[in-house]
Amino acid sequence: MYGLFEKDVMSLPELRENEVIDDLILTGLKIIQKTDNFRFSIDAVLLAHFVTLRNGDKIIDLGTGTGVIPLILTTRQTGLAITGVEIQKEMADMAARSVKLNNLENITVMNEDLRRLDPTFFTNHDLVVANPPYFPINQGKVNPVKEIALARHEITCTIKDLIATAQKLLKDKGRFSLVHRAERLGEIIVILVQAGLEPKRIRFVHTYDNKPANLVLIEAMKNAKSGVIIQEPLIVYTEKGSYSAEVFKYYFGGETCGK
Amino acid sequence: MYGLFEKDVMSLPELRENEVIDDLILTGLKIIQKTDNFRFSIDAVLLAHFVTLRNGDKIIDLGTGTGVIPLILTTRQTGLAITGVEIQKEMADMAARSVKLNNLENITVMNEDLRRLDPTFFTNHDLVVANPPYFPINQGKVNPVKEIALARHEITCTIKDLIATAQKLLKDKGRFSLVHRAERLGEIIVILVQAGLEPKRIRFVHTYDNKPANLVLIEAMKNAKSGVIIQEPLIVYTEKGSYSAEVFKYYFGGETCGK
Repeated sequence: MYGLFEKDVMSLPELRENEVIDDLILTGLKIIQKTDNFRFSIDAVLLAHFVTLRNGDKIIDLGTGTGVIPLILTTRQTGLAITGVEIQKEMADMAARSVKLNNLENITVMNEDLRRLDPTFFTNHDLVVANPPYFPINQGKVNPVKEIALARHEITCTIKDLIATAQKLLKDKGRFSLVHRAERLGEIIVILVQAGLEPKRIRFVHTYDNKPANLVLIEAMKNAKSGVIIQEPLIVYTEKGSYSAEVFKYYFGGETCGK
Repeated sequence: MYGLFEKDVMSLPELRENEVIDDLILTGLKIIQKTDNFRFSIDAVLLAHFVTLRNGDKIIDLGTGTGVIPLILTTRQTGLAITGVEIQKEMADMAARSVKLNNLENITVMNEDLRRLDPTFFTNHDLVVANPPYFPINQGKVNPVKEIALARHEITCTIKDLIATAQKLLKDKGRFSLVHRAERLGEIIVILVQAGLEPKRIRFVHTYDNKPANLVLIEAMKNAKSGVIIQEPLIVYTEKGSYSAEVFKYYFGGETCGK
């Protein structure tokens, strides 16, 4: 049935070669992705449910990819104004078409390098979100598919670039939320604090409850005092290998953990 | 029966006014503590089981109090040489008498200010351990009992003093392990990294599995590369309010988590 749906829409102007429309199951939203290229992962879904949202928040998603984070955020809170910034033209284009497909007028997609944003964007965001590349360029094999390489390796954006940009974009006491590899926690905290973004809430993501964390979700605040809450661990799978109740809710409905 | 035991030993020369000999249940060791003053807590027990130990390690415990950490370490690994440093004369004296009471010749207790250790101690320790005061002097009510105040508030030793001292005492690639309030994670990581002590292993302690962490256990390494393992969470109590299997083992026997 799902295959049939794909065929049905292949003639729609929204789709180009090797693109499909996938369901964001929970929400009834659709997202355009490629079958043979970068596709959103659970990391983006966990981050979209981790961030603190307030009515009327002006939000920017740095490196939005195919736009999955802005799409999910609209299902959690009304009245948001979200900008997705994506350096890759083709990805930004897919994100913009997904926004149109879902009739979401409060999301704007910009094909831009986050390191070169116009100063008119500075100090006027309540929330900056990012699911950035995880690996320094000297670490691990760089994927031959350019789009995947840019999403995984710090080729066009290091963690320092990202944090410096977030700091500029945020209002005083604005929030910066990111997901990253747990292994890089020390380095990220040092860069955040040096940039004046104080970690205020951290949650570690463990595949199983008896395994080390593979991901970390961090919420930092611009010009805040020191002092952080380490939330209860987020466990992805039960012992039996099915999604934990919390992650199941993220995909199939129910309450979320974000405040 | 326990009261009877207390009375039996009240006449021993080891004990002074308001002191009792408590069992470190797991180990068959005894520890002298006061009934009306600072007594060791679960924090010290968790730290003593968190630290990595290797045969022949030269270890120093900064702010050893009544000496609980050195005592437990001797039960985990043979061949250790441990120095406990304690600024409070009366506490250091109790620790020294506990060492004697247990016939542990490999533990030395020094009544000294950790900020004024002789340079002959520098760069010759494999492991520095500390369960330091948790609160800055401007935060929370300072206990009227001087010994408790010094153990809880950063009156004679700030986290910066402690980390600077650990850095001096350690050999190249030596390890520094501490327990602290999870809330101070950001601040501690920044000071560690700036001192050249890289966080390599972190474990958060949660009272219950659905509650924020109250404590953090950190192992840092002198002159190591960046990159940290966030271990599985350490949960103290089960849903029913009894000790978790892991903490039960720390008190009543069985394997420990330290490597």
